Amino acid sequence: MTMADYDSIGVIGGGAWGTALALSAARAGRRVTLWARDTALVAELRTRQSNSAYLPGITFDERLEATTDLAAAAAASALLLVTPAQTTRSLAASLRPHLRPGRPVVLCAKGIERGTGHLLSEILAEEVPEAQAAVLSGPSFAMDVARGLPTAVTVAARDGAVADGLARALASASFRPYASTDLVGVQIGGALKNVLAIACGAVVGRKLGASAQAALTARGFAELTRLGTALGARPETLTGLSGLGDLVLTCSSAQSRNFAFGLKLGEGRSPGDLIASGEKLAEGAHSARIAVELGRRHKVMLPLCEAVAGVLDGQMTIDEALTALMSRPLRREASSD
Amino acid sequence: MTMADYDSIGVIGGGAWGTALALSAARAGRRVTLWARDTALVAELRTRQSNSAYLPGITFDERLEATTDLAAAAAASALLLVTPAQTTRSLAASLRPHLRPGRPVVLCAKGIERGTGHLLSEILAEEVPEAQAAVLSGPSFAMDVARGLPTAVTVAARDGAVADGLARALASASFRPYASTDLVGVQIGGALKNVLAIACGAVVGRKLGASAQAALTARGFAELTRLGTALGARPETLTGLSGLGDLVLTCSSAQSRNFAFGLKLGEGRSPGDLIASGEKLAEGAHSARIAVELGRRHKVMLPLCEAVAGVLDGQMTIDEALTALMSRPLRREASSD
Repeated sequence: MTMADYDSIGVIGGGAWGTALALSAARAGRRVTLWARDTALVAELRTRQSNSAYLPGITFDERLEATTDLAAAAAASALLLVTPAQTTRSLAASLRPHLRPGRPVVLCAKGIERGTGHLLSEILAEEVPEAQAAVLSGPSFAMDVARGLPTAVTVAARDGAVADGLARALASASFRPYASTDLVGVQIGGALKNVLAIACGAVVGRKLGASAQAALTARGFAELTRLGTALGARPETLTGLSGLGDLVLTCSSAQSRNFAFGLKLGEGRSPGDLIASGEKLAEGAHSARIAVELGRRHKVMLPLCEAVAGVLDGQMTIDEALTALMSRPLRREASSD
Repeated sequence: MTMADYDSIGVIGGGAWGTALALSAARAGRRVTLWARDTALVAELRTRQSNSAYLPGITFDERLEATTDLAAAAAASALLLVTPAQTTRSLAASLRPHLRPGRPVVLCAKGIERGTGHLLSEILAEEVPEAQAAVLSGPSFAMDVARGLPTAVTVAARDGAVADGLARALASASFRPYASTDLVGVQIGGALKNVLAIACGAVVGRKLGASAQAALTARGFAELTRLGTALGARPETLTGLSGLGDLVLTCSSAQSRNFAFGLKLGEGRSPGDLIASGEKLAEGAHSARIAVELGRRHKVMLPLCEAVAGVLDGQMTIDEALTALMSRPLRREASSD
């Protein structure tokens, strides 16, 4: 198997994560072209070497081409797609005319498409069937990556040579990608951990203690593993950077929108209140319902996901959910439910 | 399989964790006798319903017998041994004359015996071969349990009926034990997570960011899984409450002595300085060396455990250890090293 060589990288999306990944790829020695829709942002990236709206306080020395021309970015030997999950379908469609067949498109957002329940790699396969779908995921705050703090992530593609080549192209002294061929497992871990982040936030908001939060992380991870493996994920992917690693980061930091949403629920706000006051429903709220439905279909018991979905749908309070969880019949730890 | 019935519980050890477990067993409806060596403490437990040295601010309504008579506590139908790991051998020997054969002795401390490298269950088998060894472990601060905040732990015994019986005897509305038969796995997870807690503390002390801390937790957990399974632990035990759950708690809280020790290393203190200034070497420092030795014997690569041991032995600085970790050849995420 020969390792593919990706000397130039196109980054689609000039938000915090897109800019941070572009900087990181430049540090790895790649020629980088960063596409953004916003002409003022592109001008700032070019002339002031900064992205003050998304990465305040950061000025970079790295050479980046910035452009509003999608074709210019799409000419690179590999593309990183770093736009919000729910915009993946429309952006993929716009990219299609500019992409050469077989080019890797690395999906860097996390989530499941609303309505269809599709993974981002499935969307890409539908919209740009001639592209090579890849995924980059792991515990990584954009600010940490932009600052050059040490970070490790998973890069997955079905073809191991593509994954290895992408890992080599993006690796630098501060950014360490691990290659994987488990495209499905990486995406499922990234989506389900958001459900557990809501639950962790609720436990913290309700002041139930660090022991309860840690127990929830472990029992939640048991659910993630049961559902993930039923859907075809490999267990070692789920315990890896994109699953467990990202779960640990998301469940311990109010920087995560899902955790912050759960925190407010735990403090006594109702889901209806939060929505009415303009709070956006966190990604994990959608994933909770999808998880419960998948659990039923695959006959996997998911008491924590059901509790999150039940609280969000107004069927029970957090205290009722907690009492139900604590009073379930006693189990063996490794039992299948 | 009939489930054993344990209506009375003897708790050996009147520290924070022993007292909290005694209160929890009383809430579960058991008759509880708490043994402590210290007569003043026993008097306080009896007359003031408190343990102000170890659980400040807590006064309890639960009925506890407190005694300095080991025979009185050992007459219970099951015993919890809640004294520091390194005192297990001497206490087990003192208990032996008072114990009826087949009684479960539940080991509630975490650690590996210095010098011998033995697990606590191995010590018990040597000193009291006629006892049934069991282990209780999981993410649990004594204060959380004493306050009645929700907590979940693993209770393991080789005989599943014993584990189920102990879980039932100790379960209450706020304390949820999961039964397991993986006596070895529960103990190995509890010992190895202390090594990773030192590393996590060092990353935080060195201000390397939350992404690095989460990556370290996930890659460290991969090492724990590789070594644990090589030693006979079941993977689902390692991802359970006593492994992953306790790892998450220990790696995120300065309340852990191992984490606090690592934090000081990260802030630039040398291991020699810390010892010279009266700092006690954390349990994980011993476990790091034992882990490295076991890794060599079982041909399992443990780069993080080696880095912790190397820094503690003065062979490298934290920055050198980090550079070595980040510049290792790129790997597949699920590869065996």
